[in-house]
Amino acid sequence: MMKKKSAYTVAVVGATGAVGTEMIQVLEDRDFPVGELVPLASARSEGNEVMFQGQTRPVKVLEHDSFQGVDVALFSAGASVSKEFGPVAVKAGAVVVDNSSAWRMDPKVPLVVPEVNAHALSEHQGLIANPNCSTIQMVVALKPLHDSVRIKRIIVTTFQSVSGTGKDAMEELAEQSRQLLSFGEAKVEVYPYQIAFNCLPHIDDFLPNGYTKEEMKMVNETRKIMGEPSLAITATTVRVPVFICHAESVNIETEGKLSANEARALLAAAPGIQVYDDPGHNLYPLPIDVVGTDAVYVGRVREDESVPNGLNLWIVADNLRKGAALNAVQIAEELFR
Amino acid sequence: MMKKKSAYTVAVVGATGAVGTEMIQVLEDRDFPVGELVPLASARSEGNEVMFQGQTRPVKVLEHDSFQGVDVALFSAGASVSKEFGPVAVKAGAVVVDNSSAWRMDPKVPLVVPEVNAHALSEHQGLIANPNCSTIQMVVALKPLHDSVRIKRIIVTTFQSVSGTGKDAMEELAEQSRQLLSFGEAKVEVYPYQIAFNCLPHIDDFLPNGYTKEEMKMVNETRKIMGEPSLAITATTVRVPVFICHAESVNIETEGKLSANEARALLAAAPGIQVYDDPGHNLYPLPIDVVGTDAVYVGRVREDESVPNGLNLWIVADNLRKGAALNAVQIAEELFR
Repeated sequence: MMKKKSAYTVAVVGATGAVGTEMIQVLEDRDFPVGELVPLASARSEGNEVMFQGQTRPVKVLEHDSFQGVDVALFSAGASVSKEFGPVAVKAGAVVVDNSSAWRMDPKVPLVVPEVNAHALSEHQGLIANPNCSTIQMVVALKPLHDSVRIKRIIVTTFQSVSGTGKDAMEELAEQSRQLLSFGEAKVEVYPYQIAFNCLPHIDDFLPNGYTKEEMKMVNETRKIMGEPSLAITATTVRVPVFICHAESVNIETEGKLSANEARALLAAAPGIQVYDDPGHNLYPLPIDVVGTDAVYVGRVREDESVPNGLNLWIVADNLRKGAALNAVQIAEELFR
Repeated sequence: MMKKKSAYTVAVVGATGAVGTEMIQVLEDRDFPVGELVPLASARSEGNEVMFQGQTRPVKVLEHDSFQGVDVALFSAGASVSKEFGPVAVKAGAVVVDNSSAWRMDPKVPLVVPEVNAHALSEHQGLIANPNCSTIQMVVALKPLHDSVRIKRIIVTTFQSVSGTGKDAMEELAEQSRQLLSFGEAKVEVYPYQIAFNCLPHIDDFLPNGYTKEEMKMVNETRKIMGEPSLAITATTVRVPVFICHAESVNIETEGKLSANEARALLAAAPGIQVYDDPGHNLYPLPIDVVGTDAVYVGRVREDESVPNGLNLWIVADNLRKGAALNAVQIAEELFR
């Protein structure tokens, strides 16, 4: 889909952030053919270095001329940076894979999870959007079930880790936990309330309909990725005191009937999914077990008897990898395949 | 409903446990007319004392003759203790309010949440069951909505605190958190896996249908309390690293239409409920805010557009108080009203 080279110049925008760090790690882990790595960040990170293939690379300050000679630019520095610098990078000849929400719902921008809709990449015009973390892991797990029995309705509740907010939030969870365990008061900076030993039903801003942006991302992005503009979905997204990995309790209603065993077999045969589901041996996916891995893990598959054709699932993935960095690199791999 | 006296002899079985301690506190907080308090526990707790109305009382070892002269016995020492000693207490002339799962689904035993089905108390034969913590807070919140527009289906996912397991689990969460924050390994004893900075989709034992007992308690107890034996319900119950208070993401489908505003108004007018729902001011119920309080808190009320008549709710309550001790004492209050 792009001119194939033996090696590519890859820029990572937001190279010192939680996702940017992981992007560089994933490029290395997957032997992506990187000729030159260009780590970019804001002036705040000037003087920092990143590690890649055993060597340190200085972080450069993101400027309008940063993208000369860049083949692919992976962005994870927030929507405003993507809005300003995404088109600049495209103009300089790079393909942009953008992890922010800036372009996801733009009809001219493909929103891609390779296991689900790699075909959408063929229409790209330089910009490709990486979906929201909580959406990615859900659509990977639902795709084989939808292909088999057509999903009519999705009701999802998330358990999202603080790494989705960034490194500051990870430090805040650790620091607040320490403060509270030594009978101190928790200092609140990143979130509106204490996250340690608490659950916040509030991710991203609230919208007039009472939902958060995060909840509506799950609705709208899922519809776009699955190519089902009127799929019935409702979401409740919750931040929990977990460092890395998002978990999701997902209830689906389907047109055709699927037993739990049939669903497990379909999931096990699908790309990017690991089924961990053996209650008799206490086997189910856990956030702490999944950190640093690439698959979407599915367990607790149960028939929901409250509707004729229903299933409950528990879906866990590393939000920094499959939910962000890995999916972005997989998109780049598809492009240069 | 019972012979009214100026003061009652009240036994608390499991007086040194997380719920037993709270039962004694609630008796005091609500000025329950206690003539004599009889704190009972297993031989392990011999020599312990409890505090009541500013005085210490020695804990007595639970024996078959412990209930002579007892008017009401509040049990919270596990199902096997309730099965053995509940009938003994009734035979000795006490009314038993039992917080275990031992008698809840017995058709001869009323299962009561006073705000929902106080009328069921009139049929008691000495034994009254206190429902499961996660069920109580949900039915309190759903009752006024059901009375108004009839609930057809409930899909619930819980975020349950470790105090539901007991004091050992609270210590384990604190201790594991300390160990991990000092880069040690988490020692796992109470739960099958580390609970600190993790989410466990596993509460109580697994059943052959793939659900846990906790999940099926929510299904079966809700039906019994609401008097709707065929109400469609499905549940996913998850343990989270929170000390006290359970939160629940509840999706309901109703026969009649209810706007979010109408639902909030019905909830605000119902007994035992506090509506905390103003997203514009970041107002929603949080586990850490609700500790030690008596109400069931409801927020994040949203119309679910994925069905003609649907609502999403976020329901939080102190699982040791309304979810256990308070509800038991409220039952005793109803009996002696």
